[in-house]
Amino acid sequence: MRNKFDMQLDSLKEQLTNMGELCEVAITKATEAILEGKEEQAREVILADEEIDQAEKDIERLCLKLLLQQQPVAKDLRQISAALKMITDMERIGDQASDIAEILLSTDLKMEMNNKDIGVMAQAAAKMVRESVRAYVEQNMMLAKKVMTADDEVDRLFDKIRQEIIEYIAKENGDGGEDAVDLIMVAKYLERIGDHATNIAEWVEFSVTGNHRIATEVHERKSAGEVK
Amino acid sequence: MRNKFDMQLDSLKEQLTNMGELCEVAITKATEAILEGKEEQAREVILADEEIDQAEKDIERLCLKLLLQQQPVAKDLRQISAALKMITDMERIGDQASDIAEILLSTDLKMEMNNKDIGVMAQAAAKMVRESVRAYVEQNMMLAKKVMTADDEVDRLFDKIRQEIIEYIAKENGDGGEDAVDLIMVAKYLERIGDHATNIAEWVEFSVTGNHRIATEVHERKSAGEVK
Repeated sequence: MRNKFDMQLDSLKEQLTNMGELCEVAITKATEAILEGKEEQAREVILADEEIDQAEKDIERLCLKLLLQQQPVAKDLRQISAALKMITDMERIGDQASDIAEILLSTDLKMEMNNKDIGVMAQAAAKMVRESVRAYVEQNMMLAKKVMTADDEVDRLFDKIRQEIIEYIAKENGDGGEDAVDLIMVAKYLERIGDHATNIAEWVEFSVTGNHRIATEVHERKSAGEVK
Repeated sequence: MRNKFDMQLDSLKEQLTNMGELCEVAITKATEAILEGKEEQAREVILADEEIDQAEKDIERLCLKLLLQQQPVAKDLRQISAALKMITDMERIGDQASDIAEILLSTDLKMEMNNKDIGVMAQAAAKMVRESVRAYVEQNMMLAKKVMTADDEVDRLFDKIRQEIIEYIAKENGDGGEDAVDLIMVAKYLERIGDHATNIAEWVEFSVTGNHRIATEVHERKSAGEVK
């Protein structure tokens, strides 16, 4: 028979999945809005950010309830702690999607920013978010590692877009530079979303194995005498 | 005799002032870190962001307690609601300071980014944050309006820095463009901090007068038939 803790954990995973979907939709809609100049859609993304903030609060409350009432240990404890940390990254992903949408509303975009790479980058970032949350739900280390690897591709796309835009500004002698800078900004926010999805994947690793990159790094720096 | 609500409100204002100071320090330290290449200081800013997040949670809890226990009405109710909204903007300010610090840690800055305007912009943004919180504490509309006006100057500095950097990239034919883009990013985050301080000032206006820009805009759009 399944105990109460397991049932509450299922509910937690369901809520995380829903929050992840809200983030994914926000990324896709914000990028589409900016690439196609859809102002109303940009406003929707900004409003939806409040839903994401609320989801974080609800999940945090559930996690604290689980910690206090069930006093979990070992892997159960790690799963709840990981969820508590993950939602901070998910909330930041919502913020970044909202920041992308804000760019459309706060500037006079003259140039249509139909940049194919930005679309590819947005898809890749949204996929990372989806898979990092799924990796947690399934406690699937392989999938978590896949997300970490996917971040290299998102970083590469950012470098590529940045380089293209720098070359564009140089070639055009600064004409249209403002729109070009807006485009770099969008790419930067997408790159940060990739970082947050990677953080989520690292919390999955902690949840499954008990290891976390930051803990390992501090340990290594301690051994090297850098940290007291 | 002062009643319990007033005493709790004083405590709320004290906590908001402290959170505001954490934000101010984060902005100043993050900008200094990136302009002078101080990596350890950048790491401190990122860690301090957790303190800011915690401050938000503590203040939120106090606000909810005040709402539920004291059932405030009219201006008292507006003061608590305004505080509840302000802390979201303050938390985002902490995030943006942290994002500035991250830029230093995640890139290989080759060029020393000793840009005077960035320093001026950081000071202006930090001052806006300080004064917006003080405007709330003193329920001072004049000061809130001053913050809103100061945002124009921060926006102007952003436009100036962006233009200078675009011209730099064009002149150097793209050489050093990556560092230049990092600098624009720092300016963008500072500009966003100015936006959040403006939001805080708008909540002060709501608190004092009961009017809020967004409510007015929706009302105007309704009158124009744009919103149902």
